[in-house]
Amino acid sequence: MLTQSLIAERTARMRVNAIREILKVVSQPGMISLAGGIPAPESFPMNIIRELTRQVIDTYGSKAFQYGPTEGFGPLRHHLAEHLKKKKDIQAAPENVFISSGSQGALDAAGKALISKGDKIGMASPTYLGAIQAFDPYEPEYVALATDEKGLIPESLKTVLNKNPLKFVYLVPTFQNPTGRTLPMERREHIAAILTQYDVLLIEDDPYSDLRYDGSPLKPLKALAPDHVLYIGTLSKVFSPGLRVGFYVPPALLKEWLVVVKQGVDLHTSTFNQALASEYLSGNHLEQHLPRIIARYKPKKNAMLEALANHFPTDFIWSRPEGGMFVWVEGPPGYDMEALYHRGIKKNVAFVPGKYFFTDSKSGMETMRLNFTMADEATIHTAIHVLSKLL
Amino acid sequence: MLTQSLIAERTARMRVNAIREILKVVSQPGMISLAGGIPAPESFPMNIIRELTRQVIDTYGSKAFQYGPTEGFGPLRHHLAEHLKKKKDIQAAPENVFISSGSQGALDAAGKALISKGDKIGMASPTYLGAIQAFDPYEPEYVALATDEKGLIPESLKTVLNKNPLKFVYLVPTFQNPTGRTLPMERREHIAAILTQYDVLLIEDDPYSDLRYDGSPLKPLKALAPDHVLYIGTLSKVFSPGLRVGFYVPPALLKEWLVVVKQGVDLHTSTFNQALASEYLSGNHLEQHLPRIIARYKPKKNAMLEALANHFPTDFIWSRPEGGMFVWVEGPPGYDMEALYHRGIKKNVAFVPGKYFFTDSKSGMETMRLNFTMADEATIHTAIHVLSKLL
Repeated sequence: MLTQSLIAERTARMRVNAIREILKVVSQPGMISLAGGIPAPESFPMNIIRELTRQVIDTYGSKAFQYGPTEGFGPLRHHLAEHLKKKKDIQAAPENVFISSGSQGALDAAGKALISKGDKIGMASPTYLGAIQAFDPYEPEYVALATDEKGLIPESLKTVLNKNPLKFVYLVPTFQNPTGRTLPMERREHIAAILTQYDVLLIEDDPYSDLRYDGSPLKPLKALAPDHVLYIGTLSKVFSPGLRVGFYVPPALLKEWLVVVKQGVDLHTSTFNQALASEYLSGNHLEQHLPRIIARYKPKKNAMLEALANHFPTDFIWSRPEGGMFVWVEGPPGYDMEALYHRGIKKNVAFVPGKYFFTDSKSGMETMRLNFTMADEATIHTAIHVLSKLL
Repeated sequence: MLTQSLIAERTARMRVNAIREILKVVSQPGMISLAGGIPAPESFPMNIIRELTRQVIDTYGSKAFQYGPTEGFGPLRHHLAEHLKKKKDIQAAPENVFISSGSQGALDAAGKALISKGDKIGMASPTYLGAIQAFDPYEPEYVALATDEKGLIPESLKTVLNKNPLKFVYLVPTFQNPTGRTLPMERREHIAAILTQYDVLLIEDDPYSDLRYDGSPLKPLKALAPDHVLYIGTLSKVFSPGLRVGFYVPPALLKEWLVVVKQGVDLHTSTFNQALASEYLSGNHLEQHLPRIIARYKPKKNAMLEALANHFPTDFIWSRPEGGMFVWVEGPPGYDMEALYHRGIKKNVAFVPGKYFFTDSKSGMETMRLNFTMADEATIHTAIHVLSKLL
């Protein structure tokens, strides 16, 4: 018999993604889920997709089904470069835009190319669980960076950098998962200045910025400190997550290495899916479809904020995001949201306890992440009411 | 400025895949390429694919474009389990068949889950370059296992195991890349017995066995030592490589770990592409289309063997594969096939020097890998004639 000694040392520290386990529980019929972080299936442009599959087969034929370059499908890189210039103030030539298998693929490639065992990584706390999962196998140490309701506190980054050389900083600056928080412009400028001053790399994970329901778009950090930011984007929230098409714009130093790493991991991302994404962008479908997604999500967000105001105890606080998919709730110290989770699913209402989003195991007991993109408005009101009665 | 010190220690030992670099050179118009390892685009079932995209959208709708389980798309796992039982003598329940992003994804997951720095891996020599690329980042040491014209010599494995504990053995037993060699049944049985006796894991990489032009199918090692073999397959050679759908059947011990590893790498393989693959299998399309691929490749293989016999010097030897995509040629000691490569491309004929398929940098100077799936028969004759004149 093969024995456990076969498993690599690094593997022992990998955690099963607790949220994916929760999602299995909540897929039971009748369950109201505020737990997921997934787009509403009604937001997928099914008619456009049907047309695009025809178009890709007609235009590219067998080329769309053949092996392709690790760097990505040429036409998609071209259209993404245009999109990033027009919508994000990111100036990148097509040959500096690379395709990954979802943004997860770019996070894995960055971890693999950069992290030696014991390297220190600065993480806004709480942070996106998928990033922890991508970096953990390469055995870094995490340094928690302090945050408030406006996201990462620049002075906290500076204090850490004065004490520790960081391999890089990881950040979701806009509509963060799990908090929904957005870093304001003056903080972006301050952080960009710190990156340049300390010559430190920042990974800017930006899956949500297109989903803005209120307020005005903010420049990404990549636009402010292009030589110090690895920018990662995805089509999962504005096209289809099941196609697994993400992209990244790296500083020059990293270009070659991230491609070498990806070659060994999956050779390249699906050619067919890249061609679909390319046609989605070039045919102006994103521009036309995005307002429909926003029109669908905005009332849901408002419903959740209204329900929280109506029902939740006055000693609770929560984020008021201008976009994205999540509201973050903090109870007074001493509250145990994991216990609430277990009582919630007995009443058919699920959410994610906030503790899973911290790199240390002690923080966040009194916090919860609520998703508002899956349920409809009336159901959101019901769910929040049920949870409030359990509090 | 960011500096090279940012790059992880492991990254320094990664090699750019020399073959992918060669493929860029040979994509010039007018070049006859015997260099690739890619299926002929005419072998893709384009009309079936067109119909399958419609069918998947009608049958699964938005489900085919949503996030999915890391383990894989349920219907595909089900149909693969049936296929493996019927065609490969592999008995696996659907829940023991897992989906990967190409077979490369399974090789990466295995490397990541199993290899601690310095672990010894037994490799038949020469071996598949993509496997070296998948394993290298996890910093193993390779132990070369001796081969002859029938593939891995079982006694060589035994000798190595008596001296070294191996983390695992990696093998392509059928129509190997790069040699085209196939391990005969008695060697399979012998090796299966050694695996069980020494309690050692073998990774059986099996991308080519469906492409059999002569002779009778042989049982995979997985059928002979199921608890000691991680079997890896792919739909790249019999459906479409650009869809990036592979699969694997692990021993029980590895199931959980390989899934945890994949979560961090890409969350899951494209749902849409898995659904296409599922319909390809369930609609009996593979069964109907495979004979067409074989009818296309068999005369090409015969043309290459005939041209070699007609033109190549009598002190050269080469493999006579019953399937797959490659013929392996060995010149007498002292020949430099890399020099021949450079002279070849000046005459518009490309191939891959064999030295790239060895884990040490000194072996294989006098060897070459010839692919016969891309060019037509007349072109193969011309190319071999050109090369023979350069020898």
